[in-house]
Formats: sequence, C-alpha cells, structure tokens
Amino acid sequence: MAQQKKMVEDITSMEEDFSKWYTDIVKKAELMDYSSVKGCMVIEPYGYAIWENIQREMDQRFKKLGVQNVYMPLLIPESLLQKEKDHIEGFAPECAVVTHGGGEALTEKLFIRPTSEVLFCEHYQKKIHSYRDLPKLYNQWCSVLRWEKTTRPFLRGMEFLWQEGHTMHETPEEAQEFTLKMLQVYEEVYREALAIPPVVGRKTDKEKFAGAEATYTLEPMMHNGVALQGGTTHYFGDGFAKAFGITFTGRDNDLHNPYQTSWGMSTRLIGAVIMVHGDDNGLILPPKIAPTQVVIIPIAHHKPGVLEKAQELQEKLSESFRVKLDDSDNSPGWKFAQYEMQGVPLRLEIGPKDMEKGQCVLVRRDNREKIFVALENLEETLTATLASLHDSLYQRAVENLHSKTFTATNYDEFLDIAQNKPGFIKAMWCGDSACEDKIKEATGGVKSRCIPFEEEHLSDVCVCCGKPAKHMVYWGRQY
Amino acid sequence: MAQQKKMVEDITSMEEDFSKWYTDIVKKAELMDYSSVKGCMVIEPYGYAIWENIQREMDQRFKKLGVQNVYMPLLIPESLLQKEKDHIEGFAPECAVVTHGGGEALTEKLFIRPTSEVLFCEHYQKKIHSYRDLPKLYNQWCSVLRWEKTTRPFLRGMEFLWQEGHTMHETPEEAQEFTLKMLQVYEEVYREALAIPPVVGRKTDKEKFAGAEATYTLEPMMHNGVALQGGTTHYFGDGFAKAFGITFTGRDNDLHNPYQTSWGMSTRLIGAVIMVHGDDNGLILPPKIAPTQVVIIPIAHHKPGVLEKAQELQEKLSESFRVKLDDSDNSPGWKFAQYEMQGVPLRLEIGPKDMEKGQCVLVRRDNREKIFVALENLEETLTATLASLHDSLYQRAVENLHSKTFTATNYDEFLDIAQNKPGFIKAMWCGDSACEDKIKEATGGVKSRCIPFEEEHLSDVCVCCGKPAKHMVYWGRQY
Repeated sequence: MAQQKKMVEDITSMEEDFSKWYTDIVKKAELMDYSSVKGCMVIEPYGYAIWENIQREMDQRFKKLGVQNVYMPLLIPESLLQKEKDHIEGFAPECAVVTHGGGEALTEKLFIRPTSEVLFCEHYQKKIHSYRDLPKLYNQWCSVLRWEKTTRPFLRGMEFLWQEGHTMHETPEEAQEFTLKMLQVYEEVYREALAIPPVVGRKTDKEKFAGAEATYTLEPMMHNGVALQGGTTHYFGDGFAKAFGITFTGRDNDLHNPYQTSWGMSTRLIGAVIMVHGDDNGLILPPKIAPTQVVIIPIAHHKPGVLEKAQELQEKLSESFRVKLDDSDNSPGWKFAQYEMQGVPLRLEIGPKDMEKGQCVLVRRDNREKIFVALENLEETLTATLASLHDSLYQRAVENLHSKTFTATNYDEFLDIAQNKPGFIKAMWCGDSACEDKIKEATGGVKSRCIPFEEEHLSDVCVCCGKPAKHMVYWGRQY
Repeated sequence: MAQQKKMVEDITSMEEDFSKWYTDIVKKAELMDYSSVKGCMVIEPYGYAIWENIQREMDQRFKKLGVQNVYMPLLIPESLLQKEKDHIEGFAPECAVVTHGGGEALTEKLFIRPTSEVLFCEHYQKKIHSYRDLPKLYNQWCSVLRWEKTTRPFLRGMEFLWQEGHTMHETPEEAQEFTLKMLQVYEEVYREALAIPPVVGRKTDKEKFAGAEATYTLEPMMHNGVALQGGTTHYFGDGFAKAFGITFTGRDNDLHNPYQTSWGMSTRLIGAVIMVHGDDNGLILPPKIAPTQVVIIPIAHHKPGVLEKAQELQEKLSESFRVKLDDSDNSPGWKFAQYEMQGVPLRLEIGPKDMEKGQCVLVRRDNREKIFVALENLEETLTATLASLHDSLYQRAVENLHSKTFTATNYDEFLDIAQNKPGFIKAMWCGDSACEDKIKEATGGVKSRCIPFEEEHLSDVCVCCGKPAKHMVYWGRQY
C-alpha cells in the first residue's frame, strides 16, 4: 500500500490550501495542462471525456426543445461588434485582435469572438422575413476568447469551450418564457447530470450581461464557500434586433422586430464538479458524466481464471455501463488510489475467493462502502448503486449549500459573516447599485449573486443603506 | 405544381454552369450562408446536421482504435511555430495574426492555428517520458484558419471545421503502420458513410505536407471531372520530435525520439457529397449522413384519419430512422420538390386511398422509383431500400470515377486529355518534380494527385520527359 499512500499524499488537503487542492486534482487526474499562451489550456483526454458527457446531456435536451446546432465564424469585424453599443463597451476591452492576415495588414480589425450575439444577428437579419420564420432556435458548440489577467483552470480562462444558444421570437412573452425555459433545462442538467443543486435567480442590473434586459444565473456553492457563476440565460428584448435591422412581417401584416434570447454554459462546469464533489483523495464524478463508471480490478490476477473472469465481466457490463478493466501489473493498492483520485464512481474487485463464492466486491467512491454482490445480480446492483451514489452526492451538495448559506438582517451582521463565514449571505436590498458597490468595497469582493425566484422576507429595509427593501438577494464571493 | 417547377428551375443545371449549380444547391438547401468576413461562413442547421452525422461516423471509428479526444489552444506563439522550419515556411504566410489583446499590444505575435502539430508536440514533450507512455493517440475536433485568396463554400474556406489526429509511437514501423491504418479508416468512412469511392495513394514529395516525410491522400472525383484532396494522413518520422525535444526512455534504457503521425478530414467532405451525388434537382444525401432519412408527406391530409396515420407512422419509424413529418399547408408538389432539393433519400406518401389498401408509397430520391409497401412490412422495406439506395449511389459514383479516368502514354496524348477530357489522367512519371512543374504550367493547373498503392505499368518512360519511369501517377485538376 506504499504507492497508495504516496498517491494520496500528493494531493494537498482541502483544509490546508483549497486552491492548491484544486490545481493538484486538475493536474494529477490529468484533466488539463498549461500551454505556452498564458490562460489557454490543453484539455487532456480524461477532462475532455467528461466534457463530451456533459455535452451529450445538454445537447439531447436542447434538441428535444427543437434547438438546432449551427456554426458561426470565429472572427468578428470591428464594425459589426460596434452595432450594439452596450455590447461593444462590455466586450471590446476583453478581445484579442487580428490585425494581419495572409502576410498583409488588414484594413479593418477583426476580433476573435468573445461571444457571438452579433454574428447570429447578422445572419438572422438575412433569414427572418415573416412570422412564419419564427422562432429561430439556434445553438453552437465552440470556443470563445476573452482576455483575462488572472486565470484558473476551467473556472476562468482566456479561451474556453462552451455552447451559446441564440434565439429569436415573435413576441416578448415568448422570448421571456424561452429564457426561463432554458434556465430550467440548465438546472435539470445541474441536478440530474452533475448532482449539484445550484441557487437560481435573476441578476441585478449591475451584474447583467452587456446589452441584455434581464440575465438569469445558476450559482453552485463550492466546498470552500465560494460561489460560481455557472451558467446564464439572457433576455434581450428587441434591442439587438433594432440595432441590426432585423424585421419580420407579423400576423397583422405590419413590420416588427423580433425578441431575442441567448444562453450559455461552459467547461467551467467541470470546475464546479471538482469543487462541489471532490475530497482529499481526489475527484468524485457523478455517474452520468464519469468517463469510466465502473473500474474492474482483478485481484491476484495471475491466478488461473481471474483475468478471464474479469475480461468476461468487462465485456458483459460494457453493454450497459462505461467500464474499464485495469489488468496492468501495478499493485491493487496503487490502482485503488489511482481510480479514487480520478473519481471513478465504482470499483469492482474480483479475485479467486470471490470467484469461488460466485460474487464480486463493489466499493463506492463517495463513502467507500463495500458491497458483496452475487454475479447473477450484478447489472441490477450496478444500476441501483450508481443511482444511489448520484443521490448521495446530490444530498451531500445540498447539505453543503445549506450549511454555507447565512442570513444577515443588519450591516454589522453582514460584514461579520462576510469576514468569517464563507458562503452565501441572504440579505435584503433596496435595489440601488450604490449599495452593491459599497458592499463589494467594504468586504473586499462580496457581490450580489442573484435575486432568487422565491424571495424570503427577512426584514423591511436594505441591509446596507437602511432604505426600504425591494428584494432579497443572495450575496457571495465568486470564482 | 407551379411551386415545384419554380423550385426546380431555381437551380442552375449542372451542364449549364457547374459552379453555379453547386452554389445554388449550397444556398437553396440552406447548408451555409456567407458572413461579413470574407471566406468565413455560417454553417446553417441543415449543413451542420450533416456534419454532425459525418462526425459521429468518424468519431466512433477513431474511438474503436483507442484514439482519445482532446482540445488544444486556438493560438500559437510565433516562437512555437518557428521550431520546425519546413512547417513555419509552409504555414506562416497563410496565418491570421493576433497583435493586440486586452487593449494592449502584445510582446509576441500569436497565430490563429492553421493546424496544430506544434501545439501537440509542446504537450507531448511534457507527457512522454517512457515507452510505457506510448503510443499517444490524440485527436481534436475544432476550427482552423488559413488565409485564402479565393474561397468556395465547404471546399476552400478561410475558416473550416475539421478533426486533426496527432499520434506518437515508439518505432517508425508502428507510426507508418498507423498512418496507413487511419487512411483505411478514412476510406471506410468514404465508402460506407458517404457512398464515395476515392482514389487513394501517396503524394509526391512536391505535394506533401509541410514537415512530413510522407503524405497519403484520398481523392474523390467530382461530377465535372475535377478532383478534391478530400483527406490526408501524414508520417513525420522523428523530425518534429527532435525539434521539440520529445524523448522517451526505451525498452533498452536509452533515450529515443518518438515517431509521429497526423491526419485530418474536414467539412470539405460535405462539398464532396454534393458534387459526387447531386443532380439538377438538388442534393442527394447518402442515408448514413442524411439528417432526415425519410420524409413523410400526407396526401389530402385534411381528410379524416390521414394526419393521425402520418403521425402514428412518424412516431413508430422514429425509433429506427431519422424521420420528418411535413404536415404544413404547402402543396404536396411543393413538398416533393423541396425535399428532393434537400436530398432526403426517401419520401413516404400516405393518403386516403393508401390507407384503404393498408399501404403507403415510397419514392427514392436517386432514381425516383415508386414502391408500394404494405404497412406491416414498412420497417424492413425501409431498411432494405435505404441500403439499396446507398449501394446505388456508390455504384453510380464508381461509374463516374471510371468514366472520368483516362490513360496517357505520351505527352501529346496527355495534353489532349488535359485539354478536352475532364478527369483523372493515369500516366507514368520519372520522379522529378520538374516534370510536375512543367505539366502544371503546360495544362494550366493539372497536378499530380497521388501515386496509387497498386500502380499499373503503362509504359517504361515518363510521360513528360521520356526518362525512365519510376511510378504511375494519377494526375488531375483539383478544387
């Protein structure tokens, strides 16, 4: 078991240094690697396989709603980005700029897309003529680039992978409804695929997306009490449509501008999974997105029949599960630690004694529970155990969220929690962004995360300025 | 039927103007749209759905071989691109260059990836230490950008989508074998998914990839006698590995450089499908990659029970096929023309008379054959008819290839064919690139396409210079 010890010691403990614990996992589980361009990362096979599973979970839900995938150009001419003024103000400073191509200086600067609203609008302007052309429900899977000073693997990168949906609708009501519909879909992905309960709500005006009328957000709570903006949906009204001259002939035979939404989730979700579920032994992956759901480890595999039995199990189980057999010469102890570190939900051990009894041993990654299973019941038990493991992860995350959510009814209390208790702070707010600025300044970074759909009435007045309260807000620090 | 006529007339006939016929299909079937950056295109939902099907066909074959997907950065620092001198010479002039980011001038230029050999090498340099780390079989799905003066939808674009595989091996033999293995996989995709028989072989030194020791190619023949470089695999030897200092401790305990391959196919395949299978009524899609395999068109759908029956069929058939029901109020004639234009392989008509007889009507897109099918045998008939349609498309493409492949045994004959008979010219070659230059010059663009694996002996001497022949070469014009 020397190897196991070594392996586990290699990961800094969460208590000791959460940041280092995170980067240790990211590097040792081989999820990503740095590249020679600061802030641009290599997503390694194991990390990319997690992303492919997340993509599948999202993409199939999108398609059920009638969303169609497309691909828009990587480059945006400066003149196009300038058409919507809030948008260019918000994004131009973050852009990478192409000034030369094919050996010559360009007459117009080209921006690498930081997001693609303007490209979709340019295309929709050509494609939308009648109410019969609506709704348009397009999505693209791509990379985007935003110049960031400080970066952190998966959580904040100069370049990251995401999907961005952009839709056009006949009426504001339909567009608003779709904005909330996608928020629901995202929440379902969080709960059902990632086993994470996010706090969901609306952004304040100060925190909303450049050019949007309303921004909605999903905010999961990390193990260390820091939140993450882990997905957003935006309602744009007809602002972009007007700026881009997108019109359609309505049912009334008049010309109208359509109403727009956009919505995106990114590889940041991988960061959320690590920080919500991981422990000091490494990653813990929810079964729905785990590249390997069950790792088979033969015990004493040079004894007659063991390897054959392990191979037979692999073949049979691969019909229903994502299964890996490790028949290498590394010690079982090393293998146990390795796959724990990689967060494989279930380990299946089979050795000569198990074979005599017609059984195998399952070990759960989340609680290390050992289960002896008769081979004839194996598939059902695996299905049930993976489902139970998902539920346990989810419950644990709910408890973490609750234990890290505090309530403040006056400013001193607020500052005390902000100083001493990492997590969300629920507190009343007057609706004035000046109070958001003041709180951020006073706490060194606590911002409004969102106004939840179901607000509690904690007091009558704003926790900051004492004026009448308009909303209950979740506040917190964020990645 | 006025609408149908209109629709069909809208597509320029192939004989009249092949180029215009092609762009008509691309635009009218809504495969792509132009953007405000010249050479960067929007891939629309129908075009992207074809690409997703092609991706699936390829990706599942890659994974069976143990290839793992990854993601590499979009940007390449100038210093990194310069590490391999042939490579930078080949690609630097084609690159888009980022000189500013985050509002500031950069100290080092960044190139948007035209291909990612150097990024993979940088990563492998960190990851490969021992022969136990080999082989590394990585692939990525991404967009790349090459500054092109003249562009054509799907065939030649500034930006295009592709996959690029990059592998590292312990021995030259293993790497060479893998280069050919991937060529086989590509050929299988051509034959089994795209219903296209490509000519396959090795590029001459003049035509090989910048930095490669050997380049292999797949060259499908278009309807108009022009070829297309429709996929390549490269063997690099250890040139890049040496340039990037990639070493591993071998089984002999000495340090070695690994041997490298790369291979790629792109959205260009969509162009090949259009130009190989399409006709004057529009696109014809092979069933394996058709977004809709069967379109159901209810006849007299306001008569009682028709729509219900059509919906019932849609639901039932969707379990095994990609099915679309068009229950819109457009006329059947318009619908027939529309889905012919979009290349849907099978049309299923059902109306009151069919229902009485317990049957429906299938119409094949390739030959317009009408088949009356009892509803109880529908699924089997669909499976069989789609398979037969695939085979017919393939056979037709084989015939097109044969009818457009000519043999020249002397220079006059060669020039005459090059002038008057569009297609491949098989001819002997001395091995000297001077003859390739001379032929290209004399014919206004005919180049060596490849040296096939099975060469015929057409004569003893080079068709151009009369010196002893080394190889039989396929020559031709290309997109």
